[in-house]
Amino acid sequence: MKSILEIVHECDNFPYYEPCRTDAYNRELESLWLFFLPDDPQPHGFLLDSIVQRMPWTPDFRLVTTPHKEVHLIKQDREDWQEACVKAIDDLLDLAREKKTFPGLGKKRDEQFPIVGASFDIGIERSASSLFGIVGRGAHMTVYTRTSSGMKFWIPRRNAKKSTWPNMLDNTVAGGVARGEMPFECLVREAGEEAALSEELVRRDTVAAGAVTWFNISDEKAGGELGLMNPGVLYVYDLEVGEHVTFKPVDNDVQSFHLLGVDEVKEAMRNGEFKPSCATVMIDFFVRHGFITAENEKDYTEIVSRLHRKLPFKTSPGF
Amino acid sequence: MKSILEIVHECDNFPYYEPCRTDAYNRELESLWLFFLPDDPQPHGFLLDSIVQRMPWTPDFRLVTTPHKEVHLIKQDREDWQEACVKAIDDLLDLAREKKTFPGLGKKRDEQFPIVGASFDIGIERSASSLFGIVGRGAHMTVYTRTSSGMKFWIPRRNAKKSTWPNMLDNTVAGGVARGEMPFECLVREAGEEAALSEELVRRDTVAAGAVTWFNISDEKAGGELGLMNPGVLYVYDLEVGEHVTFKPVDNDVQSFHLLGVDEVKEAMRNGEFKPSCATVMIDFFVRHGFITAENEKDYTEIVSRLHRKLPFKTSPGF
Repeated sequence: MKSILEIVHECDNFPYYEPCRTDAYNRELESLWLFFLPDDPQPHGFLLDSIVQRMPWTPDFRLVTTPHKEVHLIKQDREDWQEACVKAIDDLLDLAREKKTFPGLGKKRDEQFPIVGASFDIGIERSASSLFGIVGRGAHMTVYTRTSSGMKFWIPRRNAKKSTWPNMLDNTVAGGVARGEMPFECLVREAGEEAALSEELVRRDTVAAGAVTWFNISDEKAGGELGLMNPGVLYVYDLEVGEHVTFKPVDNDVQSFHLLGVDEVKEAMRNGEFKPSCATVMIDFFVRHGFITAENEKDYTEIVSRLHRKLPFKTSPGF
Repeated sequence: MKSILEIVHECDNFPYYEPCRTDAYNRELESLWLFFLPDDPQPHGFLLDSIVQRMPWTPDFRLVTTPHKEVHLIKQDREDWQEACVKAIDDLLDLAREKKTFPGLGKKRDEQFPIVGASFDIGIERSASSLFGIVGRGAHMTVYTRTSSGMKFWIPRRNAKKSTWPNMLDNTVAGGVARGEMPFECLVREAGEEAALSEELVRRDTVAAGAVTWFNISDEKAGGELGLMNPGVLYVYDLEVGEHVTFKPVDNDVQSFHLLGVDEVKEAMRNGEFKPSCATVMIDFFVRHGFITAENEKDYTEIVSRLHRKLPFKTSPGF
């Protein structure tokens, strides 16, 4: 059985820079390329050597290796250079797809993730955003009910046929925040699509309760390339419903919903049944609602910090 | 008026290590001495050059300068060497007091703060713990009530004669967690002493809601030496009370209690009226209860992370 800190570590598994013990951090960092946008001194993503070597870079990009390994998107000499940046990434990915460079890249879909800290509105096609190692964002909601035998949680099990995290337990509502979308609007949309929750109910009763943040290095269950750099933010929401409310799968993403108590959720987490990022959302809920405390969990302080890692890139929008 | 992120930064003001921008962090780190205990490869505190130079080190301590600047407490060749460590620090501080080395050190009091991540039970006298830059811990509670005009908070103003943070706003209940004390027991004790809350009420209705953590470099309002390294954990508790409950000062620490709404608390914070660590507890409350959201605060993700910094030293007890 895993400890709670070990469960957090499965998601937040990039090393930390610590006094006197900088080796693991530096070794990891030396293998990475920083991704830069025009007119902006701050990096926005981490690319692996193995991705940079295979990517069919177009003349829109420039690679430098000293003093750091960096990929720069070049500013074009035209008034709408910001638009040209979006197109440059899009063209590059079309070419990679045409050349079948990355088998895990999947079909092109009309959904982009934003580069969140950029100084202008720019996105990368969702399935390719993890190749660039930019900050990914999701909106996750825990739906719970108070019963005579304690608090219970509506927990979905993912479809066995999903390419990412098949059969694993998830949060009641969860989805990626698209370019141009605000987190709460994403949540309202997903709550309808995935859990058939009415917009009126969600807007009235949902409590925004913070965020979990972590820096994950992807493993095989995530699908796609191995070892990708995925810094992430999940905006966290709580929704209390009455005991009479029940949940049933409404799309193919979910195979079943289960109503589980605190100890059942903890046990499922410790058995590795939860998708790691969703486990962090449940642990954060348990911390905020007094189920995990400094008295019953010796790693309490470290867990609380690890659930809220300072991400390596700017996350406040610059426009 | 300060932004919320600026308020957080006043408390969490030690630089972060960031890719490509390591100067501020490294400059700060180079000026510090790491504090080590016997048989333990992990450091437990940061001491300033100015403290190490003045401290009247006894033969119980050894200073090394390569490869890092380090202060080691030496293991004595006796069975109760752990006891001897506690005494070595105590003797050192007695000597410093006798020599009047640190004007801000104050009278000796029978209260110790633990070295939280140590492999055995060891503490440092409370008023001297910040000289060693060990992780400090507090238990803070926000008492609130729901009224027809929204949620309101019971906020105390500190006595004008206090040596630390005079006249500033504080959390309803707040105190340092002593060596050998569990955070919730500390809270129950302080709630009685500072706010005359009954033990029964506190034990029944308080919700443990997480922790805020930060790494603070002390300034003049904190009293004592300037520029000390203070990594801190505040265990955070919420208590909802009815509208009929009122608070009055019960000891000399507090001059008055005020019932303030969300906007009034925000304005007081932004005017710099709150003790910085207490402001972080209020901001965390506002995040958890949906008053500060990704929609109304552009620095949301960074604020949430900065409220939960990973501390530079081990915080899980090793015994």
